[in-house]
Amino acid sequence: MMIHSRPEMIHTHQTAPTQFVEANGIRFAYRRFGKPGGVPLVFNQHFTGTMDHWDPAVTDGFAKDREVILFNNAGVSSSSGEVPARIEKMGANAVAFIKALGLTKVDVLGFSIGGFVAQEIALQAHDLVKRLVLVGTGPRGGEGMATLTPEAQEIFGASYDEPDHLWLRVHFTKSEKSQAAGREFLERFRLRAENRDPEVNEKVVPAQIEAISEWGAPREKSFEYLKSMNSFILQQQLPNAQLILYPDANHGSQYQYPELFVRHVSMFLSADERPGV
Amino acid sequence: MMIHSRPEMIHTHQTAPTQFVEANGIRFAYRRFGKPGGVPLVFNQHFTGTMDHWDPAVTDGFAKDREVILFNNAGVSSSSGEVPARIEKMGANAVAFIKALGLTKVDVLGFSIGGFVAQEIALQAHDLVKRLVLVGTGPRGGEGMATLTPEAQEIFGASYDEPDHLWLRVHFTKSEKSQAAGREFLERFRLRAENRDPEVNEKVVPAQIEAISEWGAPREKSFEYLKSMNSFILQQQLPNAQLILYPDANHGSQYQYPELFVRHVSMFLSADERPGV
Repeated sequence: MMIHSRPEMIHTHQTAPTQFVEANGIRFAYRRFGKPGGVPLVFNQHFTGTMDHWDPAVTDGFAKDREVILFNNAGVSSSSGEVPARIEKMGANAVAFIKALGLTKVDVLGFSIGGFVAQEIALQAHDLVKRLVLVGTGPRGGEGMATLTPEAQEIFGASYDEPDHLWLRVHFTKSEKSQAAGREFLERFRLRAENRDPEVNEKVVPAQIEAISEWGAPREKSFEYLKSMNSFILQQQLPNAQLILYPDANHGSQYQYPELFVRHVSMFLSADERPGV
Repeated sequence: MMIHSRPEMIHTHQTAPTQFVEANGIRFAYRRFGKPGGVPLVFNQHFTGTMDHWDPAVTDGFAKDREVILFNNAGVSSSSGEVPARIEKMGANAVAFIKALGLTKVDVLGFSIGGFVAQEIALQAHDLVKRLVLVGTGPRGGEGMATLTPEAQEIFGASYDEPDHLWLRVHFTKSEKSQAAGREFLERFRLRAENRDPEVNEKVVPAQIEAISEWGAPREKSFEYLKSMNSFILQQQLPNAQLILYPDANHGSQYQYPELFVRHVSMFLSADERPGV
């Protein structure tokens, strides 16, 4: 087992070893690869996902120019501890993890529930976060966010010939083109053959759903006047935020357009502070 | 006066001569510059604007890699004829103008009411248009589009120390940063000192407003359930559409973030046809 090791060779999504670091009484599993020396980009994963659920086309795409850190938050897959039933605590665990690596400045990417966690990281450790990339996610108390939608419940409750085919429905539209992109994603998703993360245990789903319910519940100053427009609300409420919507895409636009996504977000991450750039 | 001339030297926004071409009984004023040989990008201007209202940082930004064509539609500034009171006729005039240049394939960019015209160009001459870039605009019959908003009426009705300062209110937010970007835009906007377009005459405003009213009026299958979300509706309804929203920006995001805008749109224009790219 490697603790805090920083391999000298440049690893990829496929070869990066799973490493471990202790913080908050949790043994966090993580993988770290890409071009070192700059501000690392820390990935926060979606509902029931592990480090293996990221798209190598995205992670390795970023890794060409910057260091990438994947991790499992507390209680997820190869990380010890329990999944807290509050997004705030997930955020606190993520902050502890990042600090345990000795990092003082990171870019944070969050996808779906990982986007909730990313927002909490930024709220709780403002100085730690340089830039925030929020993908397929919404604001605290946003419209219709307190529960999985009926469609999502049906999708997650259904059975599939192959379990991975769940993600064809979660991340892609029904169009032929989107489904074809989904199948290509699944091929990339399965590429890492050795040292894959274990699937999450049976405690993860109820805890994550409770956390979503609490964080997503409407509260005073929720934005009820706009339905289904949570990403728009986010873009309007956050300082210096860009929103990019991709064509014919569902929850997994980063998987459907990985090269384009990497280029757009790399531009965002590399932008200097001059206005207009 | 030059007719159909293609100057051998590479011109810029500042130096490109105003040329003229006849079509539909109209003498269209246009300027053509940038790197020739590919698919030209044809610009369709906003309410009351002329060729001089484009941002040189945008037009010259595109001109580095592609040919740019600015023009005044019928009845606007240096073009002859009358402004039609229908967007459809503006679109037909634009198509006639493009074909009169002998072009068989163009990229079309439309800003605000120019975005309505651009949509009509694509509807009426599908084979002529390779890609469509819609900026600060909305769909036919979209929510609240049949009239200028009360805010816009106030802004266009107010008087200003310098007439150009109107655009600080139309295109930028009230934030210090946005206003500073606005002042920089106005400096660029004033850079072309010679052979500027005349301001539009008094017939332009009522005709353009009537055209907006007719095209923008709600009709069956309008999308009344989403307010203020016209760009979102567009992105959802058009095939292969990206929507990029910029931070702290008003109607003039292209002016506030010209370099970023050029890079994003250049990526869109240069994208090949493979999915995921």
